[in-house]
Amino acid sequence: MPEYAAKPLPFDATKLPGLSEKLLRSHHENNYVGAVKKLNGVRQQLAALASDTPGYVLHGLAQGELTFKHSVVLHELYFANLVGGGSRGSATKTLLAEHLGGAAAWEQRLVALGASLGGGSGWAILELDLHEKVPRMYSAADHAQGLSSGVPLLVLDMYEHSYHMDYGTAAGKYIDAFFANLHWEEIDRRTAIALRVAEAFA
Amino acid sequence: MPEYAAKPLPFDATKLPGLSEKLLRSHHENNYVGAVKKLNGVRQQLAALASDTPGYVLHGLAQGELTFKHSVVLHELYFANLVGGGSRGSATKTLLAEHLGGAAAWEQRLVALGASLGGGSGWAILELDLHEKVPRMYSAADHAQGLSSGVPLLVLDMYEHSYHMDYGTAAGKYIDAFFANLHWEEIDRRTAIALRVAEAFA
Amino acid sequence: MPEYAAKPLPFDATKLPGLSEKLLRSHHENNYVGAVKKLNGVRQQLAALASDTPGYVLHGLAQGELTFKHSVVLHELYFANLVGGGSRGSATKTLLAEHLGGAAAWEQRLVALGASLGGGSGWAILELDLHEKVPRMYSAADHAQGLSSGVPLLVLDMYEHSYHMDYGTAAGKYIDAFFANLHWEEIDRRTAIALRVAEAFA
Amino acid sequence: MPEYAAKPLPFDATKLPGLSEKLLRSHHENNYVGAVKKLNGVRQQLAALASDTPGYVLHGLAQGELTFKHSVVLHELYFANLVGGGSRGSATKTLLAEHLGGAAAWEQRLVALGASLGGGSGWAILELDLHEKVPRMYSAADHAQGLSSGVPLLVLDMYEHSYHMDYGTAAGKYIDAFFANLHWEEIDRRTAIALRVAEAFA
Repeated sequence: MPEYAAKPLPFDATKLPGLSEKLLRSHHENNYVGAVKKLNGVRQQLAALASDTPGYVLHGLAQGELTFKHSVVLHELYFANLVGGGSRGSATKTLLAEHLGGAAAWEQRLVALGASLGGGSGWAILELDLHEKVPRMYSAADHAQGLSSGVPLLVLDMYEHSYHMDYGTAAGKYIDAFFANLHWEEIDRRTAIALRVAEAFA
Repeated sequence: MPEYAAKPLPFDATKLPGLSEKLLRSHHENNYVGAVKKLNGVRQQLAALASDTPGYVLHGLAQGELTFKHSVVLHELYFANLVGGGSRGSATKTLLAEHLGGAAAWEQRLVALGASLGGGSGWAILELDLHEKVPRMYSAADHAQGLSSGVPLLVLDMYEHSYHMDYGTAAGKYIDAFFANLHWEEIDRRTAIALRVAEAFA
Repeated sequence: MPEYAAKPLPFDATKLPGLSEKLLRSHHENNYVGAVKKLNGVRQQLAALASDTPGYVLHGLAQGELTFKHSVVLHELYFANLVGGGSRGSATKTLLAEHLGGAAAWEQRLVALGASLGGGSGWAILELDLHEKVPRMYSAADHAQGLSSGVPLLVLDMYEHSYHMDYGTAAGKYIDAFFANLHWEEIDRRTAIALRVAEAFA
Repeated sequence: MPEYAAKPLPFDATKLPGLSEKLLRSHHENNYVGAVKKLNGVRQQLAALASDTPGYVLHGLAQGELTFKHSVVLHELYFANLVGGGSRGSATKTLLAEHLGGAAAWEQRLVALGASLGGGSGWAILELDLHEKVPRMYSAADHAQGLSSGVPLLVLDMYEHSYHMDYGTAAGKYIDAFFANLHWEEIDRRTAIALRVAEAFA
């Protein structure tokens, strides 16, 4: 398997009101690129395992791969839904209004899910659930948690490395800044793909 | 949100060599239908939460929803890939041979991932990873673990309720019986969908 | 570090009403002795790590050691509080009545904690909490969870390997059988030690 | 049960080289006192549960209590082993040299355990293990992990709130500052108690 190549930051880190260049660069370079490096490392180890390796060694590495892979996936979605600007797209808006009770209701719940992780770690995720074919929000308490049959639309990092440099423990202020910088065109693009994908499941 | 309706067992439980009717019915009625009931229950509680509910109450219920939802998703995939009979499909075969080194290699690794959970709990999962566009195997140490950007192709339940009644702690014998009963047509069908879905991501 | 030696079953496995010899021997030989073997294995690996070992390898093994060590500790406490016979001891009785509202109240809560793990995995634990100096009950969702400043008094295994062979998914019946077989002299002995320990903390 | 009362910072937060007053006060006021408040809140909810409460509600709250209780316990140990000054005590020194290969060896391993959590969350813990009667180090990946039969001697917080304000992602520099500020008298005091406790277990 070829090494996974880290993606650059998809935006100019100096232009996001409320999220400092220092924080964004550190988050990208250390936490995201760091996860890519660990993912590549753990995959090398997994590829080299002898067939009589004890199960606990395999399990430890497999948990590592799940952790770093999901960290990479979620960080890429996070940075890409943060390019800033734009108004909320019509496809997403319609979808969410139909199923999650309109902008106020779903935003409030996503904010609450994120806030409930404050002081800890995790992710708040809005996805199109391919199993029930509805948008759904959930929170993951660490990188290794997730649902296997969905297409993420909007991803909010609640690990403390996402905000402590700028906001200390004031997670609520960080969540406000996150929402103010959402890249709705990208979220709309994901929604459109997700709806096509949901059809392929029919 | 309407209640989620449990699906019936998709096969005649008396016809699976190596997996007793008693075990299969108990697994379906208690563990799967039980998870559906808990999912519906926890969703009612989540829908009724006041906006000033403490974060830890929301978090506890959200972890419950993630757990039961993923348990439902994975159990449905598990039973449906167990109808038995059929030879391994050509689409899946080709895909796996290309990326995971042929039948012997990927089966050995999936078996090892499953076996590494023996005496504990979890799932071994083969999916088409939509992020890197390759088939991938991983294990989840409980229902709440998973990767959010993939389409599961083959799912192996390693919770002890999947085999203890028939095999006690002899997890390896259960894994053999599981592989002998795989429904390759269904797995092929999933592979075909997953490949279409991967294109929609392009 | 010398290898950890597994302890034999501390009772005659044919004499526990409601818990079959087959189940008890399997539980001891496979799950407990299995954990001891994995603990010794993982410790060998940890002892042999080079100083430049990647953090994720160390972390995977360290999670393994925590898991197997706690599984060993809890299984020993479990078997030893199961020798059967005897009436509930006076020291424990007094302690629990004072702090947890009497036998009916604390048993009901411990049963409920255990039952809440049914269909999943984990432990229900009654301990003397050395931090607040009170008896406390909690549940662990897997072997790796626990509180670091307490002395366990009574330990209930809720992994499915503890009951599926005898009771299938009927976890409640297993919990009844467990309570009917409690070895109150041993629990009293632990309580007495725990109270001495709590004084040493003064 | 009376409310648990938060303890004040046991030192002058302006006097710890390498750990800023701002960081230490925020850590104490938000993360520790925050955990105390959540612990009290979740206990009120647990005390008020009806006897027919669904198991998943009890489980969610019980996981919350375990999480906040252990966070409170570990934070108190953490702050109290950080008062600074003093040379490493003789009791601890002797104990560790005997069992963990001397200062260089055990410090290196504890540093490595801590560093392996960098970019994530958790605790690195040195304890006297009452089960095997030896000092032992382990890491916990979140507040809910732990070993139930030990006496913690030295506790290192690796949640990102412990260092991001001062060091960003440079976890290694934080660990250096932590070791430079260790309060060896306190660690010696804990070792002396732990050794007495271990005798009570004989």
